[in-house]
Amino acid sequence: MKVLVELRFCGGAYHGWQAQDNAPTVQRTVTEAAERLLGSACAVTGCSRTDAGVHAKQFFCTFDSAALDAFPLDRLPTALNTLLPDDVSAVSARRVDDGFHARYGACAKEYIYRIYCGKTRDALEAGRVWMLPGRTPDEKKMDEAAGRLAGRHDFSSFCAAGGKVEDKTRCVYYCRVEKEGDVLTLRICADGFLYNMVRIIAGTLYEIGAGRPLDVDAILAARSRAAAGMTAPPEGLYLNRVFYTPREVEEAAARV
Amino acid sequence: MKVLVELRFCGGAYHGWQAQDNAPTVQRTVTEAAERLLGSACAVTGCSRTDAGVHAKQFFCTFDSAALDAFPLDRLPTALNTLLPDDVSAVSARRVDDGFHARYGACAKEYIYRIYCGKTRDALEAGRVWMLPGRTPDEKKMDEAAGRLAGRHDFSSFCAAGGKVEDKTRCVYYCRVEKEGDVLTLRICADGFLYNMVRIIAGTLYEIGAGRPLDVDAILAARSRAAAGMTAPPEGLYLNRVFYTPREVEEAAARV
Repeated sequence: MKVLVELRFCGGAYHGWQAQDNAPTVQRTVTEAAERLLGSACAVTGCSRTDAGVHAKQFFCTFDSAALDAFPLDRLPTALNTLLPDDVSAVSARRVDDGFHARYGACAKEYIYRIYCGKTRDALEAGRVWMLPGRTPDEKKMDEAAGRLAGRHDFSSFCAAGGKVEDKTRCVYYCRVEKEGDVLTLRICADGFLYNMVRIIAGTLYEIGAGRPLDVDAILAARSRAAAGMTAPPEGLYLNRVFYTPREVEEAAARV
Repeated sequence: MKVLVELRFCGGAYHGWQAQDNAPTVQRTVTEAAERLLGSACAVTGCSRTDAGVHAKQFFCTFDSAALDAFPLDRLPTALNTLLPDDVSAVSARRVDDGFHARYGACAKEYIYRIYCGKTRDALEAGRVWMLPGRTPDEKKMDEAAGRLAGRHDFSSFCAAGGKVEDKTRCVYYCRVEKEGDVLTLRICADGFLYNMVRIIAGTLYEIGAGRPLDVDAILAARSRAAAGMTAPPEGLYLNRVFYTPREVEEAAARV
């Protein structure tokens, strides 16, 4: 039986989602908790890889195990939470078809990237933002440039070397920058994301806001990583929502 | 020369403010950073002791050192921040009279206490709230009981054993409970606080919200710790504001 489990995690202590030798990952942590709970092998497949240090306000994975047949699903999140560490939690669980895939079944994802620009460093935001005290980027410039990333484009310029994907065309449904208090938030939704894409977009938009004369259209046209700005650090990045139906995407886009 | 330094800290890794042997404290951390920065001895005096694990959105301390005479104060917070760990930060600094005392000079303080009551545990709030997933206390009952704590009362019932203070009368300027999303926030401002006072108030109000038949007026009248409810854990508690003038208190009270 296959179950879609919604998670939330603070990524600071993990080398990303994907299980790997010799490093703690969220996938391994969740798999170990699931297998302890079920007393049986459980295949755990995530909706995204996520980099080391990246957080998730919403992350989905499937649990695939025969032992799930006998488990009351409404109690699964709470039972799992007793076995997970503080920085990973299960939010909900529902049965899905055996053919469902947490990653390939997702039609879009929304990330947010948080940049702190208060006068002085904020200890309560440590590890949860890109900490840039004393900087005063122009959020209107950033939002204007962000808006021009919306649409269907070849995002080669916003893809780090090392990605194996050939077709780098993605459709960005919305991309906005807003300021609340001392924190600038980039919100971007697309049908897919390339390696480091949101972090390079965040770094580039920040540089534009700080006055560097970068033109988003020219960067897109260049199809070269060298044309874009810096890669922002992982701690400001959150996978915020995962959409499994086009209707959810439309509703989210209408609210932005 | 004496300087009033505004701090912010995440208390999870510290045994409170007050320096002690064999345990990391915020006071020692700040003193070491100040002495490294100034290259000279610096007496650091805080506005409050704060328990182990308690956070501060605003905390004040004085730096007293001859080496401050030569230091440009507008650069002090940023310079100090380069020497402080991520979970402690300096926000501002201004000169004060030599007779000024960070603790005795404060006329009131505002604490907030955050209680998480979502359906399932929230990994992104770990260590920052009293995590009570699945509980649904009645916030109106809690707010009503909170309101009855406002005023001048003997708070002996809300004071943990071990305090050395004889007069346990305090004036609470305001005390409210509000809900935003999955988090209930208790906000309380008083001219002084007894040992564990806010945590006992938070625990008692939670129990009232959860249906335990406790009466705040009867608890106050009993003048006995046994009459009140449980002590809420430290991780939900934040020193939120420190007031050095009655006018600031009045303005804050008018906004609640």
